Amino acid sequence: MVNILMNFILQMPNAKPFLFTSMSPALLHLYNASQATVVIIDVLRATSTIATALFNGAKYIIPVDSVAKCIELGRQINCVTAGERDGKIAEGLSYGNSPFEYSRLFIGGKILVLTTTNGTRLLHMALEKGAREIVTGSFVNLDVVAEYLLQQKNNVILACAAWKDRINIEDTLFAGAVIEKIREHFNIECDASHIAANLYHKASGDLFDFMQRNNASHFNRLMAYGLEKDIRYCLEPNLANVLPIYEAGKLKIY
Amino acid sequence: MVNILMNFILQMPNAKPFLFTSMSPALLHLYNASQATVVIIDVLRATSTIATALFNGAKYIIPVDSVAKCIELGRQINCVTAGERDGKIAEGLSYGNSPFEYSRLFIGGKILVLTTTNGTRLLHMALEKGAREIVTGSFVNLDVVAEYLLQQKNNVILACAAWKDRINIEDTLFAGAVIEKIREHFNIECDASHIAANLYHKASGDLFDFMQRNNASHFNRLMAYGLEKDIRYCLEPNLANVLPIYEAGKLKIY
Repeated sequence: MVNILMNFILQMPNAKPFLFTSMSPALLHLYNASQATVVIIDVLRATSTIATALFNGAKYIIPVDSVAKCIELGRQINCVTAGERDGKIAEGLSYGNSPFEYSRLFIGGKILVLTTTNGTRLLHMALEKGAREIVTGSFVNLDVVAEYLLQQKNNVILACAAWKDRINIEDTLFAGAVIEKIREHFNIECDASHIAANLYHKASGDLFDFMQRNNASHFNRLMAYGLEKDIRYCLEPNLANVLPIYEAGKLKIY
Repeated sequence: MVNILMNFILQMPNAKPFLFTSMSPALLHLYNASQATVVIIDVLRATSTIATALFNGAKYIIPVDSVAKCIELGRQINCVTAGERDGKIAEGLSYGNSPFEYSRLFIGGKILVLTTTNGTRLLHMALEKGAREIVTGSFVNLDVVAEYLLQQKNNVILACAAWKDRINIEDTLFAGAVIEKIREHFNIECDASHIAANLYHKASGDLFDFMQRNNASHFNRLMAYGLEKDIRYCLEPNLANVLPIYEAGKLKIY
């Protein structure tokens, strides 16, 4: 009965699509991915680096969920293998998860095989849950993500990669930034989305300062590794405004 | 090695205890409950009603995780059986989850057996995870909860009951309210806690208005049942300032 009603509502010409925010991979199962565009969000740094590499001319990116698979693919095809565990370059891989590693000169025309602690894992979870469509988002491609969601008029799940399932500030902030841009065109019966929008509203002006003042965990971790430059880049809107869409194992520009 | 270091830090005379916020029961497993006081938070309405019934003289409360157990206990002992599913009195039980049902005249000196959709379920999850200590919190007993946590100097997990694992605004707001009161005395390396504190800071002044403006899901559900009075009561600080502590199957005043 509820399903019939839901289908009816969704078929109404003026019905707004739904928007949900999953603040941790451990909450993704609560939302119906098979009816939605899932936006994978891993601001520090996987989805910022994915947008940057594609913006700088990478042919495509193969996201894999383990270091072993990354190494194996590196043996099979001509590609750059890269990955990070706990914020550092993973053992056995040559490159890490910093957007600054992927200049046009280095990555242009190449295939990048990437594995990260949270982002690529979440992407594979969304796949397993039968997501209708998967894209990746971060501040560096904020506008193009928001425009795409508006254009598609599909249900949306903003899926935060978090840190080992613990909710984080930066991914929640990005969800909030997207919601601020598109909220009027969606039906948002989701407290997590309203929490994200309020957080972004409170932080906006200076996201770096907000994260510092709020003792954000991964911010502190990366600062301790001397990666302030990475953080500042990843919090800057629209520096790599392309839309990575996942299809048949590859992330490509839409 | 990490454990040894952790124990060392915890034994240092001036080391602050840790504070974490679990925004959904589906995230509780991420935190070490066996070393912590777990505060069960179900503002609308389980933990508000628990504090109210004890404040009004209930002998003790037996929280149970199913309607069947509630009915069974009702046959075995002289008690009031009450419970709610999806915001309404559960079938087979005589009383619901409204604090207004538990006046001094009605509940004074009696045993209350209670089951609710989210709050009592979470309490049993915390038990299974070996929580060192379990108390319940809500705005109606905000100050006494905060004072107790300060006094105990134990690690704290603020555990939100949420709604069927979906994060909600009201429980997050209460976590934020507690954090605002005690933050200086705890080590808060937990983004969820900072998100909760910011949300509370943004909302404070008028929590009812904030929930209304933000289209809070359970707020809407209860408003549709004509329960505005319940919501207003549950958002009011310190109307039933007692501390329910769980021990040997019972919630009693500390």
